[in-house]
Amino acid sequence: MVARNARLVVGVDFGTLSGRAVVVRVEDGAELAAATHDYQHGVLDRTLPDGTPLGPDWALQVPADYVDVLRHAVPAALEAAWVDPAQVIGIATDFTACTMVPTTADGTPLNEVDGFASDPHAYVKLWKHHAAQPQADRINTLAAKRGEAWLGRYGGLISSEWEFAKGLQLLEESPATYAAMKHWVEAADWIVWQLCGTYVRNACTAGYKGIHQDGTYPTRDFLAELNPDFAGFVTDKLSPVSGQLGAMAGRLTAEAASWTGLPEGIVVAVGNVDAHVTAPAAQATEPGQMVAIMGTSTCHIMNGEVLRDVPGMCGVVEGGITPGLWGYEAGQSGVGDIFNWLVTNAVPSSYADEAAARDLSVHELLTERAGTQAVGEHGLVALDWHSGNRSVLVDHELSGLVLGLTLSTRPEDLYRALIEATAYGTRTIVEAFSKSGVPVREFIAAGGLVKNPLLMQIYSDVLGLPISIIRSAQGPALGSAIHAAVAAGAYPDIHAASAAMGAVDRDVYRPDPARATAYDELYAEYLLLHDHFGRGGNEVMRRLKAVRRRVHAGADQAGVGE
Amino acid sequence: MVARNARLVVGVDFGTLSGRAVVVRVEDGAELAAATHDYQHGVLDRTLPDGTPLGPDWALQVPADYVDVLRHAVPAALEAAWVDPAQVIGIATDFTACTMVPTTADGTPLNEVDGFASDPHAYVKLWKHHAAQPQADRINTLAAKRGEAWLGRYGGLISSEWEFAKGLQLLEESPATYAAMKHWVEAADWIVWQLCGTYVRNACTAGYKGIHQDGTYPTRDFLAELNPDFAGFVTDKLSPVSGQLGAMAGRLTAEAASWTGLPEGIVVAVGNVDAHVTAPAAQATEPGQMVAIMGTSTCHIMNGEVLRDVPGMCGVVEGGITPGLWGYEAGQSGVGDIFNWLVTNAVPSSYADEAAARDLSVHELLTERAGTQAVGEHGLVALDWHSGNRSVLVDHELSGLVLGLTLSTRPEDLYRALIEATAYGTRTIVEAFSKSGVPVREFIAAGGLVKNPLLMQIYSDVLGLPISIIRSAQGPALGSAIHAAVAAGAYPDIHAASAAMGAVDRDVYRPDPARATAYDELYAEYLLLHDHFGRGGNEVMRRLKAVRRRVHAGADQAGVGE
Repeated sequence: MVARNARLVVGVDFGTLSGRAVVVRVEDGAELAAATHDYQHGVLDRTLPDGTPLGPDWALQVPADYVDVLRHAVPAALEAAWVDPAQVIGIATDFTACTMVPTTADGTPLNEVDGFASDPHAYVKLWKHHAAQPQADRINTLAAKRGEAWLGRYGGLISSEWEFAKGLQLLEESPATYAAMKHWVEAADWIVWQLCGTYVRNACTAGYKGIHQDGTYPTRDFLAELNPDFAGFVTDKLSPVSGQLGAMAGRLTAEAASWTGLPEGIVVAVGNVDAHVTAPAAQATEPGQMVAIMGTSTCHIMNGEVLRDVPGMCGVVEGGITPGLWGYEAGQSGVGDIFNWLVTNAVPSSYADEAAARDLSVHELLTERAGTQAVGEHGLVALDWHSGNRSVLVDHELSGLVLGLTLSTRPEDLYRALIEATAYGTRTIVEAFSKSGVPVREFIAAGGLVKNPLLMQIYSDVLGLPISIIRSAQGPALGSAIHAAVAAGAYPDIHAASAAMGAVDRDVYRPDPARATAYDELYAEYLLLHDHFGRGGNEVMRRLKAVRRRVHAGADQAGVGE
Repeated sequence: MVARNARLVVGVDFGTLSGRAVVVRVEDGAELAAATHDYQHGVLDRTLPDGTPLGPDWALQVPADYVDVLRHAVPAALEAAWVDPAQVIGIATDFTACTMVPTTADGTPLNEVDGFASDPHAYVKLWKHHAAQPQADRINTLAAKRGEAWLGRYGGLISSEWEFAKGLQLLEESPATYAAMKHWVEAADWIVWQLCGTYVRNACTAGYKGIHQDGTYPTRDFLAELNPDFAGFVTDKLSPVSGQLGAMAGRLTAEAASWTGLPEGIVVAVGNVDAHVTAPAAQATEPGQMVAIMGTSTCHIMNGEVLRDVPGMCGVVEGGITPGLWGYEAGQSGVGDIFNWLVTNAVPSSYADEAAARDLSVHELLTERAGTQAVGEHGLVALDWHSGNRSVLVDHELSGLVLGLTLSTRPEDLYRALIEATAYGTRTIVEAFSKSGVPVREFIAAGGLVKNPLLMQIYSDVLGLPISIIRSAQGPALGSAIHAAVAAGAYPDIHAASAAMGAVDRDVYRPDPARATAYDELYAEYLLLHDHFGRGGNEVMRRLKAVRRRVHAGADQAGVGE
């Protein structure tokens, strides 16, 4: 049991389907207990709660579900930790992003306002709401045409997931709701608003998702050219950036204290993003320490001392990870998702049966069989573009490829080739940073995939770098707790708090020289294919997607069986 | 019951695992009855009957198994047909090729000679014996260096499956057996020898498999340069071509009459090859009628009036299909094999379960699901090179490719894409013939895959040609019977016999104009990939195979799990 005089903090990580609270000791980062609460409504991607249907590519949420996490997960974690809530000196949160809440002046979500419950645009647009692609395309075309300086900070492409595209969609598809909306709020900030009663816009999401660069947003002139009614979007709907990461946003209100069981008046930290808070949890806040949060997709974040244009990065934001440094972000759209695709769609019943008989998952069985192979033995090279390519090509019209198939190709061969392809993809990112003058000095892995030792060893061999592993299994929640400790004044800054509270196992995997050399040869093959299909040598992938869309839209010729 | 005065013929088709006899009415080709007999020893690919082990890529057979087909299948077919054997006027046979028997002067297979039963080289080298690849490589290199004129007749490449490569292997690995061998006999001719007591070398296998062109074999000089001890191969071990297709080889001996139950003295036709006899069975002996025998692989044969160099053909032989015309052959190394690979290795248990519940094969389920799609809907393009590419690239270092994969790609999408890829591959062959001045005027399908109507319709749409289907389910045996009728004098030539006895359903599948147009667009994508990877744009497939061989040979670095 923790000492009665130990100071504690609470970190709350809001994911896509649930929120997780963890109680952490300020002194050393010890995680005393955690609790999870599922969102009642999950992801709304077919209908609203009242049955109103949604279009394809929509993904909404209900803001009250987030508050329920505060009401249930936080008290449960406190209780499980067997601690006195009076020991808690601060709370911090992190969120998926870009996830947007339309609110009234006092922060009430529009879906809770009379008359709006049946309007999809009154709900939270979740990060993976992809129905604003036409608006994103117009933003990109116009920004390129006008030579907007900020475009380069985002690898040349603003995502349909981000604030401006989603806001423009709202305006154009539901003008009355747009007019009724006083604030267009990142959920990362909205939850902080619920905790401390103050709307504080954090530098991280404003920079990465809100096109806030060098202290300013896109101009009124630019917005008016997109749509005259959008001219006032920044001045009317967004707020200036008012919160640096690790700073205090306010103090816990009486109401939020009653939800959480925490003492009224404790420090509430500025909001943050799940991937970005993971860096201090992994003791990776120094320049050149790249953290890869590896799950269904991978997010790479790294601080740098200088501002450089890194081709294909997602974004670079001053103070985007820790104040005073340039925070770089890159990403791979599909990683674990691709392995799951193979297991679901392309592994025969004999494998499923063997896995079941041996009490293994199919992933574990394939990993075991793939692990006995030498580099190059399967004869395959794949491109990991099943979800498109975020970094470094920034092209979601790309698609996956497997080359080298023979009649003796087995599922474990494909599994290993896909793991290798994602490792090659990571190497293109590491090399892009290093070549741009932002060298990657250390590679630190976090996220669910760190549990696969074969995958980690392949990444080490392909990158030719040792790989360190975050020690915490709940990196984002611990990262939030670290931010709470800094905001509460327990440490002078994020770096100091990270050193004391974060934890990493250094160089768990080291490259094998022979395998690394063998992978250099295969990586050269990957790069040839990568550049041929990704940089204009043959735009067949783009054309096949166009054909596919035309067929789905027009059904201009029927199937043989129809 | 057939009329007592009806004239009959017997055709016997010797396949890889069994032989099939069919009793056919001369007047109209009616198939009265058939019977099959499995080879007792099947394919010897691990050990000889006495347990002597075989190396990798070996595939042998026992000649006595072929005689057993004459002893069992022919009498069984006659009995099932309820006919008087005295009505039978001739017998003809066809064989897989190139399948080689080493014999003594009287045709006794060496494996039956005292002292040779434990020497693998004393047995039949089946068509798919692939252990003579080093010898084939040397033949090709030397022929190219010397500019041998015959090389162009084989698309520039002599196969390891053929007479010279297998003969050279025999010499170099078992010189004593080579010395004891008086004749190196195609099984197609050996079985005729057993029937009529005379060794008659047929023009078809001599041309396609024995490098017999313009009345001559490769020179003594060429052979000596391969290996001095091989200089006399043609003069000492091969025989001159003495039999045109459809001609009489001799008359049934008393011994063969006792085996078969047929009348002594009836006509025995010159030997032939399974694919080639299928042409008259499908009424496809005129120039420009291409017959595709579609199974695990596909063989394309077509008569032409002129000799042309068709890039990538397997061979062109004067009188190779029917006397007086140039017989062209081309092929696709993997067709049904590729679909079987997918079903075995990459279809999940949910599909197997649904197929079982509905009493369908997995092929049928995938076909059903793939059949409801419009052209281009799956967004994939594949290269059908899982077994390399025979025509038109003649490169077995190539390998399969799938492009356009997304997280929503399903097994039926892959299945359809692979069917389409093989159809595109067929189109490259059809176009190569047409562009070379040997136009394909009609496309006729035979073989097991004709039973899949989706596949046939896709081929029709991709080729932009109607597809006719052979009516007989046992095309080779019927084709042999047609040759027997001609040899026995019942018809003046193969064309006349084919018209009366063969049968085809014309234009069963017709291209849909909208789908054909849609496929033109996708075929252009296939061609771009085909030429990029197949004609030197990126030789990654060749390099990956080299890496793979190096790894398998040297195991220069161990797997992660070792």
